[in-house]
Amino acid sequence: MLKPDPGRLLAVAREEALLGKAEGGVPIGAALFTVDGELLGRGHNRRVQDGDPAMHAETAAFRDAGRRPHYRDTVMVTTLSPCWFCSGLIRQFGMAHVVIGEARTFSGGHDWLAGLGVGITIVDDPGCVALMTEFIEQRPELWFEDIGVETP
Amino acid sequence: MLKPDPGRLLAVAREEALLGKAEGGVPIGAALFTVDGELLGRGHNRRVQDGDPAMHAETAAFRDAGRRPHYRDTVMVTTLSPCWFCSGLIRQFGMAHVVIGEARTFSGGHDWLAGLGVGITIVDDPGCVALMTEFIEQRPELWFEDIGVETP
Repeated sequence: MLKPDPGRLLAVAREEALLGKAEGGVPIGAALFTVDGELLGRGHNRRVQDGDPAMHAETAAFRDAGRRPHYRDTVMVTTLSPCWFCSGLIRQFGMAHVVIGEARTFSGGHDWLAGLGVGITIVDDPGCVALMTEFIEQRPELWFEDIGVETP
Repeated sequence: MLKPDPGRLLAVAREEALLGKAEGGVPIGAALFTVDGELLGRGHNRRVQDGDPAMHAETAAFRDAGRRPHYRDTVMVTTLSPCWFCSGLIRQFGMAHVVIGEARTFSGGHDWLAGLGVGITIVDDPGCVALMTEFIEQRPELWFEDIGVETP
Protein backbone atom coordinates (compact mmCIF):
# COMPACT_ATOMS: atom_id res chain seq x y z
CA MET A 1 0.00 0.00 0.00
CA LEU A 2 2.90 2.38 0.78
CA LYS A 3 4.58 3.28 -2.51
CA PRO A 4 7.10 5.97 -1.45
CA ASP A 5 10.36 5.16 0.31
CA PRO A 6 9.75 5.47 4.09
CA GLY A 7 13.18 7.08 4.53
CA ARG A 8 12.25 9.92 2.19
CA LEU A 9 9.03 10.59 4.11
CA LEU A 10 10.81 10.36 7.45
CA ALA A 11 13.37 12.96 6.37
CA VAL A 12 10.61 15.61 6.41
CA ALA A 13 9.48 14.64 9.92
CA ARG A 14 13.10 14.62 11.13
CA GLU A 15 13.60 18.11 9.70
CA GLU A 16 10.59 19.23 11.73
CA ALA A 17 12.00 17.60 14.89
CA LEU A 18 15.25 19.50 14.40
CA LEU A 19 13.33 22.77 13.99
CA GLY A 20 11.59 22.01 17.30
CA LYS A 21 14.93 21.31 18.95
CA ALA A 22 16.40 24.58 17.63
CA GLU A 23 13.42 26.43 19.15
CA GLY A 24 14.06 24.86 22.56
CA GLY A 25 10.99 22.66 22.27
CA VAL A 26 10.22 18.95 22.42
CA PRO A 27 12.16 17.55 19.41
CA ILE A 28 9.47 15.44 17.79
CA GLY A 29 8.38 16.07 14.19
CA ALA A 30 5.70 14.70 11.90
CA ALA A 31 4.29 15.01 8.40
CA LEU A 32 1.11 13.86 6.68
CA PHE A 33 1.46 12.48 3.16
CA THR A 34 -0.81 10.74 0.71
CA VAL A 35 0.04 7.07 0.13
CA ASP A 36 1.44 8.26 -3.21
CA GLY A 37 3.95 10.50 -1.45
CA GLU A 38 2.35 13.93 -1.81
CA LEU A 39 3.03 16.14 1.23
CA LEU A 40 -0.21 17.41 2.82
CA GLY A 41 1.04 18.95 6.07
CA ARG A 42 4.01 19.03 8.43
CA GLY A 43 4.72 20.22 11.95
CA HIS A 44 6.44 19.67 15.26
CA ASN A 45 5.56 19.60 18.92
CA ARG A 46 4.64 23.13 20.12
CA ARG A 47 4.23 22.67 23.89
CA VAL A 48 7.04 25.08 24.72
CA GLN A 49 6.76 27.43 21.72
CA ASP A 50 2.99 28.09 22.01
CA GLY A 51 2.34 26.87 25.56
CA ASP A 52 0.00 24.44 23.79
CA PRO A 53 -0.12 20.89 25.21
CA ALA A 54 -2.48 19.76 22.42
CA MET A 55 0.09 20.31 19.69
CA HIS A 56 2.05 17.10 19.55
CA ALA A 57 3.98 16.65 16.30
CA GLU A 58 1.23 14.51 14.75
CA THR A 59 -1.63 16.86 15.68
CA ALA A 60 0.43 19.81 14.36
CA ALA A 61 0.94 18.06 10.99
CA PHE A 62 -2.76 17.10 10.94
CA ARG A 63 -3.77 20.72 11.59
CA ASP A 64 -1.34 21.97 8.95
CA ALA A 65 -2.98 19.72 6.34
CA GLY A 66 -6.28 21.57 6.90
CA ARG A 67 -9.79 20.22 6.45
CA ARG A 68 -10.21 17.04 4.40
CA PRO A 69 -13.26 14.90 3.74
CA HIS A 70 -11.40 11.70 4.69
CA TYR A 71 -7.91 10.31 5.37
CA ARG A 72 -8.09 6.77 4.02
CA ASP A 73 -5.32 7.53 1.50
CA THR A 74 -2.97 9.20 3.99
CA VAL A 75 0.23 8.25 5.82
CA MET A 76 1.20 9.79 9.15
CA VAL A 77 4.97 10.01 9.45
CA THR A 78 6.44 10.71 12.87
CA THR A 79 9.93 10.61 14.36
CA LEU A 80 8.66 8.76 17.47
CA SER A 81 6.09 6.04 18.14
CA PRO A 82 2.74 7.87 18.48
CA CYS A 83 1.41 8.30 22.02
CA TRP A 84 -2.20 7.27 22.77
CA PHE A 85 -3.49 10.75 21.91
CA CYS A 86 -1.89 10.61 18.46
CA SER A 87 -2.72 6.93 18.00
CA GLY A 88 -6.34 7.85 18.68
CA LEU A 89 -6.08 10.54 16.00
CA ILE A 90 -4.80 7.98 13.49
CA ARG A 91 -7.59 5.53 14.37
CA GLN A 92 -10.45 8.05 14.37
CA PHE A 93 -9.51 9.48 11.00
CA GLY A 94 -8.82 6.11 9.43
CA MET A 95 -5.31 6.82 8.19
CA ALA A 96 -3.93 3.99 6.09
CA HIS A 97 -0.34 3.83 7.29
CA VAL A 98 2.07 5.13 9.94
CA VAL A 99 5.81 5.53 9.36
CA ILE A 100 7.70 5.73 12.67
CA GLY A 101 11.28 6.93 13.07
CA GLU A 102 11.89 4.93 16.21
CA ALA A 103 10.05 3.12 19.01
CA ARG A 104 13.02 2.50 21.33
CA THR A 105 12.86 5.52 23.63
CA PHE A 106 9.04 5.47 23.81
CA SER A 107 6.38 3.07 22.63
CA GLY A 108 2.81 4.33 22.33
CA GLY A 109 -0.15 2.80 20.50
CA HIS A 110 1.38 1.47 17.28
CA ASP A 111 0.75 -2.21 18.13
CA TRP A 112 -2.89 -1.35 18.86
CA LEU A 113 -3.13 0.38 15.48
CA ALA A 114 -1.50 -2.59 13.72
CA GLY A 115 -4.14 -4.87 15.29
CA LEU A 116 -6.82 -2.60 13.81
CA GLY A 117 -5.40 -2.97 10.31
CA VAL A 118 -3.30 0.21 10.07
CA GLY A 119 -0.04 -0.37 8.19
CA ILE A 120 2.98 0.26 10.44
CA THR A 121 6.57 0.82 9.27
CA ILE A 122 9.24 1.31 11.94
CA VAL A 123 12.39 2.70 10.32
CA ASP A 124 14.50 2.45 13.51
CA ASP A 125 16.50 5.48 12.49
CA PRO A 126 19.66 6.12 14.60
CA GLY A 127 19.28 9.90 14.15
CA CYS A 128 15.78 9.82 15.67
CA VAL A 129 16.95 7.61 18.55
CA ALA A 130 19.89 9.96 19.31
CA LEU A 131 17.61 13.03 19.24
CA MET A 132 15.20 11.62 21.83
CA THR A 133 17.89 9.98 23.99
CA GLU A 134 19.68 13.30 24.33
CA PHE A 135 16.44 15.20 24.97
CA ILE A 136 15.17 12.83 27.67
CA GLU A 137 18.57 12.97 29.37
CA GLN A 138 18.74 16.77 29.28
CA ARG A 139 15.09 17.73 29.87
CA PRO A 140 13.37 14.83 31.69
CA GLU A 141 10.76 17.11 33.33
CA LEU A 142 9.69 18.48 29.93
CA TRP A 143 9.54 15.04 28.38
CA PHE A 144 7.41 13.60 31.19
CA GLU A 145 5.11 16.63 31.08
CA ASP A 146 4.63 16.06 27.35
CA ILE A 147 3.29 12.55 27.93
CA GLY A 148 1.38 13.42 31.11
CA VAL A 149 3.60 11.40 33.43
CA GLU A 150 4.74 12.90 36.72
CA THR A 151 8.55 13.14 36.79
CA PRO A 152 9.69 9.98 38.58
CA MET B 1 -13.96 10.06 43.22
CA LEU B 2 -16.16 12.69 41.51
CA LYS B 3 -17.40 15.12 44.17
CA PRO B 4 -19.16 17.80 42.07
CA ASP B 5 -22.60 17.32 40.56
CA PRO B 6 -22.12 16.07 36.96
CA GLY B 7 -25.03 18.25 35.81
CA ARG B 8 -23.27 21.41 37.03
CA LEU B 9 -20.09 20.47 35.15
CA LEU B 10 -22.04 19.52 32.02
CA ALA B 11 -23.78 22.91 31.99
CA VAL B 12 -20.42 24.55 31.12
CA ALA B 13 -19.76 22.12 28.26
CA ARG B 14 -23.31 22.62 26.97
CA GLU B 15 -22.81 26.39 27.03
CA GLU B 16 -19.71 25.87 24.86
CA ALA B 17 -21.65 23.64 22.45
CA LEU B 18 -24.28 26.38 22.06
CA LEU B 19 -21.55 28.95 21.36
CA GLY B 20 -20.23 26.63 18.64
CA LYS B 21 -23.72 26.28 17.19
CA ALA B 22 -24.21 30.08 17.17
CA GLU B 23 -20.93 30.41 15.25
CA GLY B 24 -22.12 27.95 12.60
CA GLY B 25 -19.73 25.25 13.81
CA VAL B 26 -19.96 21.68 15.03
CA PRO B 27 -22.06 22.02 18.23
CA ILE B 28 -19.92 20.02 20.65
CA GLY B 29 -18.53 21.59 23.82
CA ALA B 30 -16.20 20.48 26.59
CA ALA B 31 -14.58 21.65 29.80
CA LEU B 32 -11.73 20.40 31.96
CA PHE B 33 -12.26 20.52 35.72
CA THR B 34 -10.38 19.24 38.76
CA VAL B 35 -12.13 16.39 40.57
CA ASP B 36 -13.01 19.03 43.20
CA GLY B 37 -14.94 21.06 40.63
CA GLU B 38 -12.48 23.84 39.80
CA LEU B 39 -12.71 24.90 36.13
CA LEU B 40 -9.34 24.63 34.36
CA GLY B 41 -10.29 25.17 30.72
CA ARG B 42 -13.27 25.18 28.36
CA GLY B 43 -13.80 25.16 24.61
CA HIS B 44 -15.77 23.93 21.63
CA ASN B 45 -15.12 22.33 18.29
CA ARG B 46 -13.39 24.82 15.95
CA ARG B 47 -13.29 22.95 12.62
CA VAL B 48 -15.41 25.55 10.84
CA GLN B 49 -14.38 28.64 12.80
CA ASP B 50 -10.59 28.15 12.49
CA GLY B 51 -10.44 25.61 9.66
CA ASP B 52 -8.74 23.45 12.28
CA PRO B 53 -9.64 19.75 12.24
CA ALA B 54 -7.50 19.11 15.37
CA MET B 55 -9.71 21.25 17.59
CA HIS B 56 -12.42 18.95 18.76
CA ALA B 57 -14.24 20.21 21.86
CA GLU B 58 -12.07 18.14 24.21
CA THR B 59 -8.75 19.16 22.64
CA ALA B 60 -9.90 22.81 22.71
CA ALA B 61 -10.68 22.58 26.46
CA PHE B 62 -7.36 20.77 27.04
CA ARG B 63 -5.48 23.51 25.17
CA ASP B 64 -7.37 26.22 27.07
CA ALA B 65 -6.24 24.73 30.40
CA GLY B 66 -2.61 25.32 29.39
CA ARG B 67 0.45 23.35 30.45
CA ARG B 68 0.12 21.13 33.52
CA PRO B 69 2.55 18.64 35.05
CA HIS B 70 -0.13 15.91 35.23
CA TYR B 71 -3.88 15.33 34.91
CA ARG B 72 -4.57 12.58 37.45
CA ASP B 73 -6.92 14.91 39.39
CA THR B 74 -8.87 16.13 36.36
CA VAL B 75 -12.30 15.46 34.84
CA MET B 76 -12.98 15.89 31.12
CA VAL B 77 -16.58 16.97 30.57
CA THR B 78 -17.99 16.75 27.07
CA THR B 79 -21.44 17.04 25.55
CA LEU B 80 -20.87 13.94 23.37
CA SER B 81 -19.13 10.57 23.84
CA PRO B 82 -15.44 11.24 23.04
CA CYS B 83 -14.21 10.00 19.64
CA TRP B 84 -11.03 7.86 19.50
CA PHE B 85 -8.85 10.95 19.11
CA CYS B 86 -10.24 12.49 22.30
CA SER B 87 -10.39 9.13 24.10
CA GLY B 88 -6.68 8.76 23.32
CA LEU B 89 -6.11 12.21 24.83
CA ILE B 90 -7.89 11.15 28.02
CA ARG B 91 -5.88 7.91 28.22
CA GLN B 92 -2.47 9.43 27.45
CA PHE B 93 -2.83 12.17 30.04
CA GLY B 94 -4.29 9.88 32.68
CA MET B 95 -7.43 11.87 33.41
CA ALA B 96 -9.41 10.45 36.31
CA HIS B 97 -12.96 10.82 35.07
CA VAL B 98 -15.08 11.65 32.02
CA VAL B 99 -18.56 13.20 32.23
CA ILE B 100 -20.49 12.68 28.99
CA GLY B 101 -23.64 14.56 28.00
CA GLU B 102 -24.90 11.80 25.75
CA ALA B 103 -23.74 8.70 23.88
CA ARG B 104 -26.89 8.06 21.81
CA THR B 105 -26.07 9.91 18.59
CA PHE B 106 -22.40 8.80 18.62
CA SER B 107 -20.39 6.37 20.71
CA GLY B 108 -16.59 6.70 20.72
CA GLY B 109 -14.06 5.20 23.13
CA HIS B 110 -15.73 5.57 26.52
CA ASP B 111 -16.11 1.80 27.09
CA TRP B 112 -12.42 1.35 26.27
CA LEU B 113 -11.57 4.05 28.83
CA ALA B 114 -13.82 2.45 31.46
CA GLY B 115 -11.96 -0.83 30.94
CA LEU B 116 -8.71 1.01 31.64
CA GLY B 117 -10.00 2.32 34.96
CA VAL B 118 -11.19 5.80 33.93
CA GLY B 119 -14.40 6.82 35.73
CA ILE B 120 -17.26 7.36 33.26
CA THR B 121 -20.51 9.20 33.97
CA ILE B 122 -23.09 9.38 31.17
CA VAL B 123 -25.69 12.03 32.02
CA ASP B 124 -27.95 11.20 29.04
CA ASP B 125 -29.04 14.82 28.81
CA PRO B 126 -32.01 15.44 26.46
CA GLY B 127 -30.63 18.90 25.54
CA CYS B 128 -27.36 17.38 24.32
CA VAL B 129 -29.22 14.67 22.36
CA ALA B 130 -31.45 17.27 20.68
CA LEU B 131 -28.48 19.46 19.75
CA MET B 132 -26.64 16.62 17.96
CA THR B 133 -29.76 15.08 16.41
CA GLU B 134 -30.65 18.41 14.80
CA PHE B 135 -27.05 19.03 13.69
CA ILE B 136 -26.58 15.60 12.09
CA GLU B 137 -29.91 16.02 10.29
CA GLN B 138 -29.08 19.50 8.99
CA ARG B 139 -25.32 19.20 8.28
CA PRO B 140 -24.53 15.50 7.71
CA GLU B 141 -21.49 16.28 5.50
CA LEU B 142 -19.94 18.45 8.22
CA TRP B 143 -20.62 15.87 10.91
CA PHE B 144 -19.07 13.02 8.91
CA GLU B 145 -16.06 15.17 8.04
CA ASP B 146 -15.56 15.88 11.74
CA ILE B 147 -15.21 12.18 12.53
CA GLY B 148 -13.31 11.32 9.35
CA VAL B 149 -16.08 9.27 7.79
CA GLU B 150 -16.94 9.71 4.14
CA THR B 151 -20.54 10.89 3.77
CA PRO B 152 -22.57 7.72 3.20
